[in-house]
Parts: sequence; C-alpha cells; structure tokens
Amino acid sequence: MDDPKTVFWLSAHPEPRSLNGQLRRMGIKHLKSTGHHVVESDLYAMGWDPVVRGDGLVEAGQRFDPTGDTKRAYIEGSLPSDVRGEQAKLQDADAVVVQFPLWWYAVPAILKGWFDRVLVSGFAFGKDPDTGQRLRFEKGPFQGKRVLVLVTLGDRPRAIGPRGKSGELCELLFGLLHGTFAYTGMVVLPPMAFPSADFTDNESYADMEHALHDRLDQLFETQPIHYRPQFQGDYTEEWELVPEVRPGETGLSTHVIDDHERPS
Amino acid sequence: MDDPKTVFWLSAHPEPRSLNGQLRRMGIKHLKSTGHHVVESDLYAMGWDPVVRGDGLVEAGQRFDPTGDTKRAYIEGSLPSDVRGEQAKLQDADAVVVQFPLWWYAVPAILKGWFDRVLVSGFAFGKDPDTGQRLRFEKGPFQGKRVLVLVTLGDRPRAIGPRGKSGELCELLFGLLHGTFAYTGMVVLPPMAFPSADFTDNESYADMEHALHDRLDQLFETQPIHYRPQFQGDYTEEWELVPEVRPGETGLSTHVIDDHERPS
Repeated sequence: MDDPKTVFWLSAHPEPRSLNGQLRRMGIKHLKSTGHHVVESDLYAMGWDPVVRGDGLVEAGQRFDPTGDTKRAYIEGSLPSDVRGEQAKLQDADAVVVQFPLWWYAVPAILKGWFDRVLVSGFAFGKDPDTGQRLRFEKGPFQGKRVLVLVTLGDRPRAIGPRGKSGELCELLFGLLHGTFAYTGMVVLPPMAFPSADFTDNESYADMEHALHDRLDQLFETQPIHYRPQFQGDYTEEWELVPEVRPGETGLSTHVIDDHERPS
Repeated sequence: MDDPKTVFWLSAHPEPRSLNGQLRRMGIKHLKSTGHHVVESDLYAMGWDPVVRGDGLVEAGQRFDPTGDTKRAYIEGSLPSDVRGEQAKLQDADAVVVQFPLWWYAVPAILKGWFDRVLVSGFAFGKDPDTGQRLRFEKGPFQGKRVLVLVTLGDRPRAIGPRGKSGELCELLFGLLHGTFAYTGMVVLPPMAFPSADFTDNESYADMEHALHDRLDQLFETQPIHYRPQFQGDYTEEWELVPEVRPGETGLSTHVIDDHERPS
C-alpha cells in the first residue's frame, strides 16, 4: 500500500463470539494486512460508561448544563480521561468504522452514549471564535474524516430497502449519518448492512466476509452520500430548504443531492 | 374525571432544575390534578443501568445471545429486578409519556438502554405459541396502550418541519415511533416538540406549559399516527410494501396511511 492510513474501529456488542465479534476481528485483520494502522474501541470490552453526568464537571449541588459544562471542561482539558482518550482516537483517525447490531432500530445504548459523551461542543462542533461562523457540516471540525457504518440486523434485506417496512436504512439512520457524522464534518459512506443476521450459516458468512473485505479495500475511494452543504444557499437561516431546491418535495431524501442536480 | 387512567411517565434528563425537569414536574402534577394515577421512572434519579449484559443471565464464560437469553430469562422470571419493575409499570399503564432532550438527534443513552433492556422478546413482541402468529404491530402485546413523546431540542421549529434540515420529527424518530412503539402494538400519538429549548424565557415557557396541558388533556382522545398494519395485505412476506400500495413511492411517509386512503 502506498498510503497507509489510520482507521479507528468503534464497535459495540456484548459477546465476542457473536457474528459482530467475528466480523470485527476479521475486518481489523484485513485492514492491518493491507497496511493500515488500526486503533480500536470495543465498548463492551472497555466497560465504557455511556451516561452523561455532571459528576466531576460541576460542584455537588450545582446545576448541570450538559452542553455548556462539557464544552467548558473540554476547553479546560478537564473532561474525564476516558472521554479524552476517545477524542484523541477520533482526532487522529483518517477513517472511522462504526460497527453495531441494530437494537430497536437504533444503536445500542453503550454506543449512543459514546456519541453523547465524546462529541462535545468545542470538539465536534462549535463556532469560530473570531468570525462567529458556525463550525458544522462542511465547516465541521472532522472534515475529510471518512465514516463507514457496519450494521447487523435481524430483518431481511427488503425490509430496509426503499419500500421496506423498517425504513430504508439511510433514512432509518438519518440522525446518525446526517445529524451526527455529517454534522461534525465527516464524509459519510453508504452504510453496509448485514441483514438476516440470525440466519447466518457458513456460506452466507463467507459472502459477508468477502463483501466486507471489498468495502474496506474501497474505504478511501467509495463515493460518499452527498448530503447538502449547510452554508451554500440550499437552506434558509431557519435550517429549512429554500423553495427553489426540490420544490414542493418533503422527506429525508431531499437532503441528499440528486445525481441530476450535480454538474456532470 | 369519569374515567381515571394510569399514566406511566418515563423521562431522562440529568438535571432536575432543567427545562425537562420543570416540564416533567408540571406535567405530572397536571395529570394528577385531572384525576389520573401517575407512575414515574426518572431514569437519572433512579441510576438506571442502560447496558444490556449477559451477567446473571448466562454462566460465566458461556456465550451470551442478547435476544435469546433475555427471552428465556423473561419466561423463567429471572430477569434482573430493575428490568422486571419497569416491565410491570409498562404493563399496567394505559398510556406512556416518554420525555427526553434530543441528543445527537436521538434519545439519550440512558433512555435507549431502557428500551434495550426492558422490551425483551416474549414481553414486548413474540410469537403465539399455538398458532405461530407473529405478535407485533397490530398483533403486538401492547395494543391499546397510548404513547406520547415529549422532546426538547435546540433547533428552531422549521428545522424539524417537512423540509427541515434536521429531518421532519416523525421521520427522524421513525425507529422509535414506528420501529419500537408501533412494533410492540402501542397507539402512537404525534410527538410533541419543544424546539429552541435553549432560548426559553418566561413567556415562551408559559406557552409550553399551556400547550403541554392541552396535549395531556387530550391524551386519550388525540388521533394517533396511522401506521399501516403489518398483517392486512399492505406488505409482502419480506416486509416490503406491495406494489399496489403507494405505487412507485419511497420514503418513510409511505408507511403512514394517507387520509385519502382511509374510508371516510
């Protein structure tokens, strides 16, 4: 490999001998074998605490403001050491792989609490102190960092397709892909789903492994999801699409730039 | 009140002196004043553990299957006592109010872990042991139980409107409203949002309080979101809309029955 990168593999499954555990080990091994440096956070193995609390951030009995007090602690360097450790891993990464089982059509609590605790104001978003420019989306601090979601789920493939009852996967995960990753400036790759996970046999597992290798090989080349930029005229000051963009249309897909909208 | 009901108020905010804490106390007081019985779970105050673990469910060193082992423990009555306590509260409730601040466009980790740990197979969904019928959506165990989401958020109102950048609220929360509440059989009310929460002053707070009283007064009369039933021909066996329903359309809103589809 000409250009080795640092990949941060963030995962959340309670059982190492699960399909998730197997895919994790195999994916990390593959990335290393292709020359990348891999940094890991296996949240269950680490005993990660997912709960945002004021303890240590404000004096006992003081009112705790989750946004303001974590921002202040970030600036002062007084966030808990586990949070600072995760921030350093994310900061140093060229790409992030976020792997989880879909529980109640969302990330497991232990992983949600990684976002809640690690992505504090000042670190993951903020304002330019000189210009007042909001630092998010295309101005976000994590510009250029690629993120790939790997998700196992029990539903069959069509249930997360465009007319699937569980919701098309990118729409179902909009708050994560757009509201979290794109918000902080990351380059969001199409997520990779492993449906029918409870019915994995040796043959289907071999297919999964092969497909995952392919996606990891393309980690730095895959075309991302083209979410609209925030500050280039597509949205009003109230964060609503201007009337000229996709006139009359609604729905989450309006926030993705259509192929025919892009200059060829 | 002729017909007092039991309302379960489930909430998650770390600071009682927050807007969330104030709305919670006020809402509960109002429900009681109108004759309802209110049961509470204030997850931060309870020190709720949000992490699904195999401890106590499988022998040390045994492989842990989050779905299968919690189902078995539910049937045997050996789930942890905190989980059983929450299940009893939910079981006994005529309506549930679920209140939270929107963190990273989703529920806080401590609340996500309530769903992860409490809504186990056998309790919140399952199969009829005699007929093999899947017990979910209109066959789900919580049929008739109403659920109202109250959510505070920093964004301004239009950001969560039909063309808002953060995603229209019901679409943003699809995994919760549809994939969790409707899945288990609940009657899902349109969620109530408190946007611009960081800019609340006395006047806007008075408006919030008034609006919340109105919604709580209508808790048992409000028209719910008309999600499609699962077993009445709208979906294939693969959980995909049949071609005749909303032909050619995609997006999360296709899973809600349009007014013009319903018999008048």
